[in-house]
Formats: sequence, structure tokens, C-alpha cells
Amino acid sequence: MTGALAPREDWTADRCPMAHALDVVRTKSAFLVLREAFYGATRFEEFVSRTQLSEPVAAARLRELTAEGLLEREPYQEPGQRTRRAYRLTEKGSDLLPVFVALMQWGDRWVVPGGARVEVRHHDCGAPVRAALRCEHDHAVAADELELARRR
Amino acid sequence: MTGALAPREDWTADRCPMAHALDVVRTKSAFLVLREAFYGATRFEEFVSRTQLSEPVAAARLRELTAEGLLEREPYQEPGQRTRRAYRLTEKGSDLLPVFVALMQWGDRWVVPGGARVEVRHHDCGAPVRAALRCEHDHAVAADELELARRR
Repeated sequence: MTGALAPREDWTADRCPMAHALDVVRTKSAFLVLREAFYGATRFEEFVSRTQLSEPVAAARLRELTAEGLLEREPYQEPGQRTRRAYRLTEKGSDLLPVFVALMQWGDRWVVPGGARVEVRHHDCGAPVRAALRCEHDHAVAADELELARRR
Repeated sequence: MTGALAPREDWTADRCPMAHALDVVRTKSAFLVLREAFYGATRFEEFVSRTQLSEPVAAARLRELTAEGLLEREPYQEPGQRTRRAYRLTEKGSDLLPVFVALMQWGDRWVVPGGARVEVRHHDCGAPVRAALRCEHDHAVAADELELARRR
């Protein structure tokens, strides 16, 4: 990141929005549960089988993410069954999607041997989707064109 | 995310690039150290004072991130001092920037009371920068326009 945070002392760590975000989604297991919610999982059993987390860990993450307002529970009932709860992403939860896409593309480029077998695509045109940095004037922004500044 | 992963069994958790990314950058303290590297910190003392991590924790994270190839160490020498090492982001480390910007904007919107005092801007035009989802055809992609598919 070029440019300096000027005055740099304006930046206090206790107000860092990234650190606060990581206080809410703080574990890999939380990311895995959210990943499955993005992929369409709604039922407890789906979260357990898809994440390969233990039932107690999956239940704890679902409870925490619901308490934090990233997931909400809705009642549903299948014929002849008791009423159960389905988990759905709230707007707050859905709004994390760029974080997931950015992590996926980084892992795909730098970590996964041979690359992932799946990719995220734009439904309308079929082209692969990337998390990209854009400014409000719609310029594509490279890493060395960023500056951190006091909010106006 | 609309669309299904079809066939869904193609998606095996052990190949998930997001999970692999979180095996490399696995702790909040690692994110904090990288944050400071993005902001321009290079010296050990800077990382300690800016992250407010303890020296042993900061040293462990710097060592791990260097071993993983996100940071590299370069010798430098100030007049009259012994040679020391400065930490710099590698391309692998710099490539995580969209993840950081995406986490910052989510935390800023949803978690930090009153919002952050600083923002990331495009150096050339001064406009705020966002992590946005774009497809290769340069369409802006909304969350409900994504699909996950087997890589071609």
C-alpha cells in the first residue's frame, strides 16, 4: 500500500474494522460453516456432513453466527416430522461474500496443489468471478495504487 | 449463491482453496501482522507497537509468514548499528490485499461502532476503494448472480 496513513496516529488498532470483523468470524470452522451457507446448506445435518466438523463444533458455530446476526433460523416442517429450524444467511452474512471469493482465489493461486476443481462463475454470462479492487469512479485499482487516509 | 454445485459431490472439502488459505493465515494475529505490512511496517519494533501483540507472538507470526512465503527478510543497516532484517511483502503476500479490503469494508459496515476513521482510497483519483465481485467480462456481479461450477 503506497501513501502513508497521515497522520498515522489517527489509526488506532481498537477501531480497526478488519480486527473487529475477525472478532465476529474468528475461527476456520466459522468460515467453513459460512461457506456451506453460501453454497446453499440450510439444515444442521448438511452443515455437519459438508464441513466435516463434529456435531458439537458445528452446533457451536451455528449458534454463534446466529447470535451475531450472520445467520437466522426459520422453522420448517417436512411431512410427518416435527418442526425444525433451517439456517439462512442474513444480509450481514451475505455481505461477507467478497471476503470468501477473495480467500478462495488466493488459496487457489497460492496454496492448493493443482488448483481447485470448482470455480465461482457469473450466472448470467458464465465467466469466472474475481474479487477485485475498484474505486467509486470504477477504476480498477492495483495494490500499489492504494492509500490509506483519514475519512472525510 | 444461486445455482447448485452440480454435481455437488465434486466438491471435496480437502480441496477447498478457502480452507487451504486459512491454513496459511490462520490467526487473527497473522492478519494483524499482515495488515501492518500492507501499511508499510518493515521493522520488528513497528510490528510489535502497531499490532499491540506481545514480542513473542509477533516474532512467531513473522517467522511463520516468512516461512510460508508471504513475507521476506532483507538486510538493512543504519549508521553505527549492526545489520538487521526488514520484512517486506512478497507477491504471494501482496496478493492477499483484496481479502483485507473486503474484511475492512465488512467490519466497517457491520461491526465497528460509528465506523472506522480511515478508509482506503485510490491514489490516482482519491475515490474510496471497495472489494467488488467482477466477472472476466467485467460485469459487476451481485451475490445472487453467482454460481459454483466444476472448473472447465
